[in-house]
Amino acid sequence: MRAYVITIGNEILKGRTINTNAAHIGRVLTYAGYDVIRMVVVPDEIDEIVWAFRDGLSRADLIVSTGGLGPTFDDKTVEALAKALNLELELNQEAFSMVKSKYDRLGVELTKERIKMAYMPKGAKPLPNPVGTAPGVYIEYAGKRILTLPGVPAEMEAILDEALPQLRVPGRYYYEESVVVRGIMESALAPVVNEVMRLNAGLVYVKSHPKGIEIDKPVVEVEVSASGSSEEEVRGRVKEAIRQLVSRAKSINPQCC
Amino acid sequence: MRAYVITIGNEILKGRTINTNAAHIGRVLTYAGYDVIRMVVVPDEIDEIVWAFRDGLSRADLIVSTGGLGPTFDDKTVEALAKALNLELELNQEAFSMVKSKYDRLGVELTKERIKMAYMPKGAKPLPNPVGTAPGVYIEYAGKRILTLPGVPAEMEAILDEALPQLRVPGRYYYEESVVVRGIMESALAPVVNEVMRLNAGLVYVKSHPKGIEIDKPVVEVEVSASGSSEEEVRGRVKEAIRQLVSRAKSINPQCC
Repeated sequence: MRAYVITIGNEILKGRTINTNAAHIGRVLTYAGYDVIRMVVVPDEIDEIVWAFRDGLSRADLIVSTGGLGPTFDDKTVEALAKALNLELELNQEAFSMVKSKYDRLGVELTKERIKMAYMPKGAKPLPNPVGTAPGVYIEYAGKRILTLPGVPAEMEAILDEALPQLRVPGRYYYEESVVVRGIMESALAPVVNEVMRLNAGLVYVKSHPKGIEIDKPVVEVEVSASGSSEEEVRGRVKEAIRQLVSRAKSINPQCC
Repeated sequence: MRAYVITIGNEILKGRTINTNAAHIGRVLTYAGYDVIRMVVVPDEIDEIVWAFRDGLSRADLIVSTGGLGPTFDDKTVEALAKALNLELELNQEAFSMVKSKYDRLGVELTKERIKMAYMPKGAKPLPNPVGTAPGVYIEYAGKRILTLPGVPAEMEAILDEALPQLRVPGRYYYEESVVVRGIMESALAPVVNEVMRLNAGLVYVKSHPKGIEIDKPVVEVEVSASGSSEEEVRGRVKEAIRQLVSRAKSINPQCC
């Protein structure tokens, strides 16, 4: 199952905000059994957001977006989502109750900016926001699932946590382990990485992440990961590959790891 | 001038690594006068990287990528770049000298993994890497500029710093300032934001970033920014819009800011 992550917001494009949301979602979905195949960041513009949802729908089984769900003029995600799906935008009664109850508690009136957060594409299901006000949006379309979340990290995380049990890919497990290799240049470790990949072709993925300075002070973190239908099996494959890697790296530099 | 940012690496898609590179590049390019219009993250797969470069070329004047320049099997960026541009991949003599001199210093041989880092599309210019080994790649194609940088942040930043003077958009300035508004819900501030946008239509951009809890403890950071051909003018526009915003916000809650 393939997942696609969309981040909406000019502040990300301008580098004003680091996109920790995409990383969080990527992590959660990977461990939920998905292959995250693409992430995109688009501005607060309808046509760009529409493009992102359509690109996601053409490539993945699950699309998760963050940002653009609030009460301001540049919160355009649900409008764009409706357009991307050719669905009508309507006042969702369940979402309206959620939004209303939040403001009722404070005794403030429901202005059009507040009611805006209860509009959703026809057929969408609002997801309660335990932290903030704007509900998340869940919709199924052409066999694909779309989850639209707020951009505030605490709100995004809370709604995603709630939705996760339904999103998890049944019988699909991911496992990952890393080993830090010191005193071997990444270029010298490359043939070892290649060999371990060959020995476990299609079963594990090995990637080296240089953390030091290639020539003067080489430190390489090697990540080994696997996905499969048994938790025990993927863990076993990763551990065996790590063992192969460490034994070969030690033959280059016995103090490496 | 429009810029497009590509991040290459499975570790970003899996959320193992937070994409600080894209934020850094977005920030630097915004202040260099670009509109960053899209960011994408793609896996270490040729076809996906080719797609990203082509999507960038079809939309932007400058494309900056990070990741996939190293010595390992999954460093595929230059190969994909050559394919995206329909150019031959060749051993770049200038890049070869750069790579060779790094390893010569240590007296180690130039294995094929090390020489790999000197291959570039025909016509590309290598950019010296003062921190690591793999040179950056600069190439002009169909009136567009492409800058390909390593994924290690210190290396990426150093090469980008060096390249920046040539990339800067002449006579284009960006300025941004923020004000923190307390005790006014984002939904109550929305009409104020709208009004300030209307008063300065096309001149400034105003975006509210909720930082607290909408109903119980509202804290909203309002960002005002402008781009234009005079540094003084954009600064003046932003400061005037901030003044309008603060005066209107204070009429809702005098202690707000």
